[in-house]
Amino acid sequence: MIATTTRPLIVERHHPQITRIRHVCMREGRERTGLFYVEGMRFLTQAMQHQARIEALVVCRDLLVHPFAQKLVYMHEQQKTPLLEVSADVMESISQVPDSQGIGALVQQRWQRLEQVRIRKKLCWLAIETIRLPGNLGTILRTSDAVGGAGVLLFGNSTDPYDPGTVRATMGAIFTQRFVRTSIGELASWKRREQYQIVGTSPAATQDYHAVRYTAPTILLIGEERKGLSAELQSMCDLMVSIPMVGESDSLNVAIATGVMLYELFNQQRATI
Amino acid sequence: MIATTTRPLIVERHHPQITRIRHVCMREGRERTGLFYVEGMRFLTQAMQHQARIEALVVCRDLLVHPFAQKLVYMHEQQKTPLLEVSADVMESISQVPDSQGIGALVQQRWQRLEQVRIRKKLCWLAIETIRLPGNLGTILRTSDAVGGAGVLLFGNSTDPYDPGTVRATMGAIFTQRFVRTSIGELASWKRREQYQIVGTSPAATQDYHAVRYTAPTILLIGEERKGLSAELQSMCDLMVSIPMVGESDSLNVAIATGVMLYELFNQQRATI
Repeated sequence: MIATTTRPLIVERHHPQITRIRHVCMREGRERTGLFYVEGMRFLTQAMQHQARIEALVVCRDLLVHPFAQKLVYMHEQQKTPLLEVSADVMESISQVPDSQGIGALVQQRWQRLEQVRIRKKLCWLAIETIRLPGNLGTILRTSDAVGGAGVLLFGNSTDPYDPGTVRATMGAIFTQRFVRTSIGELASWKRREQYQIVGTSPAATQDYHAVRYTAPTILLIGEERKGLSAELQSMCDLMVSIPMVGESDSLNVAIATGVMLYELFNQQRATI
Repeated sequence: MIATTTRPLIVERHHPQITRIRHVCMREGRERTGLFYVEGMRFLTQAMQHQARIEALVVCRDLLVHPFAQKLVYMHEQQKTPLLEVSADVMESISQVPDSQGIGALVQQRWQRLEQVRIRKKLCWLAIETIRLPGNLGTILRTSDAVGGAGVLLFGNSTDPYDPGTVRATMGAIFTQRFVRTSIGELASWKRREQYQIVGTSPAATQDYHAVRYTAPTILLIGEERKGLSAELQSMCDLMVSIPMVGESDSLNVAIATGVMLYELFNQQRATI
């Protein structure tokens, strides 16, 4: 059974609802609304699996050629999710990928408070102050999902995990990872109570990352792309380790360094089970 | 002593020499000339350290504020490297970064033939058919440099390591890595003679990458971002391994997977020394 649509088709790129989506694709719009925008079958499926709150589904019937995408829309129609029907031109004006699948959604962001953080069944938490490139943070979140990481503690306001470039690079892991905004001071006093071990990496550290036994629960501190961990963040760490390098580069890409550290933690955890 | 320049200042964006640089920043231009373009002190320093052949140095005195950049230009003037003096406007028209340091260069590409390949003192070679995103390949080359990898064997013509996006992401490792264009057939017959072990990764492989002892010399086959290793490439492998995942993602980013594999090889090699 195909539900007959009686909704008006939005054909104008500057329709208020479309302008609002474009607004959400920018940082200020996300801050103001608490929403983010995702598109494509993979993301919509993950959103549903994780009971993400969808404020509005955006559908372009002309581009909705995949049977599974059609099924996703049908399921949302049954659940009475608000639908925006748009023309192909409008869909392309908000799409961030070259091959739109005709389906997108405005989704509510999810944030936790630091006191809600529990690590017990998870491998670790990550903690960052700044990651400059959205693709790097998205790749880090995708890797954290792969090894059973819980999510990311963010110091201050400089990095937004719901940036469209970050979301895209997570390949769906944006819905499995948890996010907490905190401050360095708050984390420092909290971790003393909760007995977390905070681990940081630096090329100058004397301990080899692969020679250390990591005792859970771990928080892995990740530095900014160019500058690495600030002195203030290094001073928070219970353990500083280095990832050896024998070439001429003076550093690894931040997502690679995090991936190497996460698989070390994961391999050690797997070895003890 | 500051050398007095008597060269004409190029102020037109469409000057033939500038158009040529822009041409080299595109694939067709690189194929035709055998050159590539780099910019910034880091890359120029690496180029000099590795005796890369610089066809022309591009200098913008108005942007050349860093003393080390000035020193690099002076050294090239002493060596009689051809210099193009350009205005800030022209420099910005060819620059791929937002904060040009006023120095760039047209550099000769370096290629080797398969029969020249020797692994002995190096950790491994990588082999790829296609990597879609230049940034992914650049990050892979940067990691290969970090662990002492030799370089990349490229099947066919689809991937160009001298793409500006790739070069930039290598952070200079473009000059330490070696490049060989070959074919699947050529590599298959060559590796039987040379006794290399070819290792591939796939989520479907039954052997855990971390449980295997890798016997040097190794060639690590890397699949394309979305499709992974083709059946043809998998059939070339002496060993297929999987990198375990416990989350909901069905794959890792290709540069992360390669980084995890490279550090496994590197850690095993370090353990035997």
